[in-house]
Amino acid sequence: MTEKFKSYFEKAVGNVREEGRYRVFQDIRRKRGQFPKATWYPDDISEREVTVWCSNDYLGMGQNECVIEAVKSAVDATGTGSGGTRNISGTTHYHVQLERELAGLHHKNAALVFTSGYVANEATLSVMSKILPGLVIFSDEMNHASMIAGIRNARCEKHIFKHNNLKDLEAKLQAIPLAVPKLIVFESVYSMDADIAPVEGICDLAEKYNALTYIDEVHAVGMYGPRGGGVCEARGLMDRISVIQGTLAKAYGMIGGYVAADAVIIDAVRSMASGFIFTTSIPPSTAAGALRSVKILKISPEIRRRHQERTAALKARFRTAGYPFIDGETHIVPLIIGDPVECKTMSDRLIEDFSLYVQPINFPTVPRGTERLRFTPSPFHTDAMMDELMAALNVVWAEFEPRCHNVI
Amino acid sequence: MTEKFKSYFEKAVGNVREEGRYRVFQDIRRKRGQFPKATWYPDDISEREVTVWCSNDYLGMGQNECVIEAVKSAVDATGTGSGGTRNISGTTHYHVQLERELAGLHHKNAALVFTSGYVANEATLSVMSKILPGLVIFSDEMNHASMIAGIRNARCEKHIFKHNNLKDLEAKLQAIPLAVPKLIVFESVYSMDADIAPVEGICDLAEKYNALTYIDEVHAVGMYGPRGGGVCEARGLMDRISVIQGTLAKAYGMIGGYVAADAVIIDAVRSMASGFIFTTSIPPSTAAGALRSVKILKISPEIRRRHQERTAALKARFRTAGYPFIDGETHIVPLIIGDPVECKTMSDRLIEDFSLYVQPINFPTVPRGTERLRFTPSPFHTDAMMDELMAALNVVWAEFEPRCHNVI
Repeated sequence: MTEKFKSYFEKAVGNVREEGRYRVFQDIRRKRGQFPKATWYPDDISEREVTVWCSNDYLGMGQNECVIEAVKSAVDATGTGSGGTRNISGTTHYHVQLERELAGLHHKNAALVFTSGYVANEATLSVMSKILPGLVIFSDEMNHASMIAGIRNARCEKHIFKHNNLKDLEAKLQAIPLAVPKLIVFESVYSMDADIAPVEGICDLAEKYNALTYIDEVHAVGMYGPRGGGVCEARGLMDRISVIQGTLAKAYGMIGGYVAADAVIIDAVRSMASGFIFTTSIPPSTAAGALRSVKILKISPEIRRRHQERTAALKARFRTAGYPFIDGETHIVPLIIGDPVECKTMSDRLIEDFSLYVQPINFPTVPRGTERLRFTPSPFHTDAMMDELMAALNVVWAEFEPRCHNVI
Repeated sequence: MTEKFKSYFEKAVGNVREEGRYRVFQDIRRKRGQFPKATWYPDDISEREVTVWCSNDYLGMGQNECVIEAVKSAVDATGTGSGGTRNISGTTHYHVQLERELAGLHHKNAALVFTSGYVANEATLSVMSKILPGLVIFSDEMNHASMIAGIRNARCEKHIFKHNNLKDLEAKLQAIPLAVPKLIVFESVYSMDADIAPVEGICDLAEKYNALTYIDEVHAVGMYGPRGGGVCEARGLMDRISVIQGTLAKAYGMIGGYVAADAVIIDAVRSMASGFIFTTSIPPSTAAGALRSVKILKISPEIRRRHQERTAALKARFRTAGYPFIDGETHIVPLIIGDPVECKTMSDRLIEDFSLYVQPINFPTVPRGTERLRFTPSPFHTDAMMDELMAALNVVWAEFEPRCHNVI
């Protein structure tokens, strides 16, 4: 590589550094059976036990003994990888059973598993315009990067509506002739702001204006609804949504993503989506673990109740302490710092001096100026852990408060 | 969903069916320790043992006992999923170790692991134009769908050169001013045609015309080169390639993809690529299994020798039988049928009546009119299995030959 080429890459990284949003990936190793504890490797020679406060293994299912057993049994039975794309020797009995289970979870007659939730969104949304001639997409302005990628790759007319704003959505729907096919794309739980979409209102508008609906429930499946079917199940709306997208990588503790919908939609996506067709399927053991996890969470309302109770407990402490957190209706507790350098410094101080790991969240994951520490209390975060966290935050906050940008 | 909407999806699937390229995923379950045997589930109530002839677990490493042990040990130590993106609690000690190993494998000083080889290509290529102002990309016309997706998403000037054609590539490079930054994107082993790129010639042109090089070695890593470093290692060219992309899902028997390059390139991609940033990292156990597999294949020239010998044995049989297969220099043996319906019918007959599984390959995986049965003999396909295959093909071929389109 010439020096000239090298300078371009250095400049790109330099810009990220200058903005204070250069990312250092904390090297950790979770300890089975001790969730949310992990070993932290600050460098090549030392290690230390920390408490993880920012995992998206929201319910600790990645350490559930039955899920672990399902994974190991499948590895014992079949080996590790699947050995092929879904079409070329990579469809196993585990994949078939998992897709049936996911379809049933969402009251749909089919589901399709992808290598990730990101790919599920990108691949599915990108083919919608090929199937529906003249399609116009309406997308919530806070949608996840994977949905934005899919919509961009759909290369059709699109309109961005204000976040969770039914009035703005309706105005934009009204502007397009009724006969034109439309698709409204949104999330149920927005991961970084902890709020929930007005799903019923969006369904009403979809019916009124001849639109299909596509909802991303990755931060809700397993955690909301009597069987973990997500916000749509909790609100009795699953039958009114055309495509429900979810993940196996958060509450279900594995990896992979999926969509559930009418069989003809799934069949079309399966037949046409590049990101589905041209990639090795998830390992049989991943499908087996996910299947077990979905089945367990279907009959575990108690873990969901405990999850919400623990979240409420942390929020109550933040409220009492007067911290500028987003006091939303979900299990996510974002503490707004508003500056990338301060956010990173606070995070470093918490892990180095208090053995508490909460990752700084910066651009492009959240808008510039809204940098935050995002806490995700699980059913396994005890009162003692919360007391420990509050004591540490109390110290660190006192050092930083004067400089903190109170943006909420 | 309205009937009108439904009809669009039905029409999309109907078109695929009419072309005879509707895909039926064979539901199988591989049997650990009996590679390449698997259980086939033709329907919900029956099962049968089959021999798999189309796996991309080229070396059977997905059933290697040491790899299986590494996966299970990691699950025992840490649980199943990683619980987060690489930046948000999803970087584990296993990921760090794997990336070091992959960098070393390719004589680079850094590597980056993605959820799949597809995502590695798409995510990396799509950010190159953001980093290199005015970038012009030169892409082999037979490049994989994931590279095409990445190049499209790069949204910069691009030129498609004729497959493996140095003359055409040079003509296209010449047409662009020398000072303009360029990137040549190609594969080493082309998966469906079994041929190998003129890597050295491409490196020469890259140097002459001020271009970086990006090579996809997914069908070569683990299988070529003294340590499994791929075609570039075999030919002593790793140091002349800017970015080497590979997969953990084929010869290494797991799932996931990666790029290896100079640290500053990796750092820029890591900081900017949407498909890397916004997705849950591969499970620790996947990283652990891949790490073990890479280490094993680094010191296993014998399995590579056996792989090539088995491939030669199958090709010799095909040659003797006079079948129209692509007699290339790699381990892939494509038998050209040239019609989607006949290809599917032959595949069905082979599995139903002879318990031999080789998937029909049709559009969009290969161009229309070049439909094929793609055989991938592994080190574990015995002479007896080959005799069994030839006997079955002999019967089936006699039924179809009159109608076969001999396209090579």
